[in-house]
Amino acid sequence: MTKNTKVNAAIIIIGNEILSGRTQDTNTSSIALWLNSLGINVGEVRVIPDIESKIVETVNHFRKINNYVFTTGGIGPTHDDITAESISKAFNLDYEIHKEAFKILENYYKPGEFNEGRQKMVWMPKEANLILNPTSGAPGFNVENVFCLPGVPSILKSMLGGLKNKIVGGEPILSHTVSLRTVESEIAKSLTNVQKNNKDIEIGSYPFFQAGKLGVSIVIRSENKSKIDKCESEILEFVNKKKIEIVER
Amino acid sequence: MTKNTKVNAAIIIIGNEILSGRTQDTNTSSIALWLNSLGINVGEVRVIPDIESKIVETVNHFRKINNYVFTTGGIGPTHDDITAESISKAFNLDYEIHKEAFKILENYYKPGEFNEGRQKMVWMPKEANLILNPTSGAPGFNVENVFCLPGVPSILKSMLGGLKNKIVGGEPILSHTVSLRTVESEIAKSLTNVQKNNKDIEIGSYPFFQAGKLGVSIVIRSENKSKIDKCESEILEFVNKKKIEIVER
Repeated sequence: MTKNTKVNAAIIIIGNEILSGRTQDTNTSSIALWLNSLGINVGEVRVIPDIESKIVETVNHFRKINNYVFTTGGIGPTHDDITAESISKAFNLDYEIHKEAFKILENYYKPGEFNEGRQKMVWMPKEANLILNPTSGAPGFNVENVFCLPGVPSILKSMLGGLKNKIVGGEPILSHTVSLRTVESEIAKSLTNVQKNNKDIEIGSYPFFQAGKLGVSIVIRSENKSKIDKCESEILEFVNKKKIEIVER
Repeated sequence: MTKNTKVNAAIIIIGNEILSGRTQDTNTSSIALWLNSLGINVGEVRVIPDIESKIVETVNHFRKINNYVFTTGGIGPTHDDITAESISKAFNLDYEIHKEAFKILENYYKPGEFNEGRQKMVWMPKEANLILNPTSGAPGFNVENVFCLPGVPSILKSMLGGLKNKIVGGEPILSHTVSLRTVESEIAKSLTNVQKNNKDIEIGSYPFFQAGKLGVSIVIRSENKSKIDKCESEILEFVNKKKIEIVER
């Protein structure tokens, strides 16, 4: 594969604990920032419950319309960890013991500690490719373009680095932020004009409240540095005209 | 409407800043916890970009299969705030100035400050019902079962209270957590048995790392207190047998 300017991904967060509000998802942000650095754009994220039919349906929907799909959660040892079996069903593959994963965990644990619960973690779709886990042993896996990672944020983060050579990114997505001491309504009209002049650039406007003061961050995103620069200079033009203070964030 | 035991909701997080990883979504957790307290279960969350067709499609998909749909983001004054216009299209309603919202903001701002940017925030689907905003003036709105809230977490939270009389909940979803000084693989088999004995109870197992020690929280969820109690006593039975320490979290 050669580098492509548009590489898209979707993220599926699997877990009742996110839907109940008990746990705050942070994996979306970790995966998205990492994908962005590889030039891959996240088009959609879905948070779904630990229900097999829902996992199968969502994976099959996303894997056909995205270059890459990432799932988080549900690959641990307990009864509510059903991601590996669901992925097997989505791809119509046997769900079986992965010999390489078995060896990894057999070596990882002390003799006698590789018990029945832990052995569940080596059941995977037939011929899955392993994603190594430098933190806690149990590997993730991918089948074709679907990459299955654990839900625990620190473990997930430690596994992303090892994925780099399995992923073909696009042109890096560049992002530039201009933060202003103003409120959105003061700049809305001018910013609309800048967006109209720069239709293929993503311009976002995000109010913030920091150290007791209101502000707005304008985020410009594109694969093209000179387009970002042009856009920024148009923004700075109205900022100077309106005498709005630029702030560091 | 009378109280129903199964009331479902979906949440749509609208915003490129979440998909790029720049901003960490916290609204899902705020809305889900609040809905749970009203006996409403969140079945799915989708994070989608600021693209009109995507908003229309997602809203129309969810509003037909859920009792309630909540959107966050995209109702501010800038060019990337397209939620209100998209909801108008989803319901095939005119997008127009909402007179009551206009009056609210006319009174909220000092004379001369209710500028063109701010006036954008009173454009809504025809006959939308307002959701009052005690923090920053600009109201949210609902059309039928679709409730549109802002993306700024503190403002969103301040608006949830005022929604209570517009929402008919179900039986409160009760949740009980037992935290143990153990690892998941030690209890996986016993917990699977408890789940088999209590098929209509949601039992989740979540590893944690706190103050340098590993643990597992078991979360039992149901509308039925006595079923939760039965489930808990079965868990405590194997916990005592295995001499696992119970911890406070």
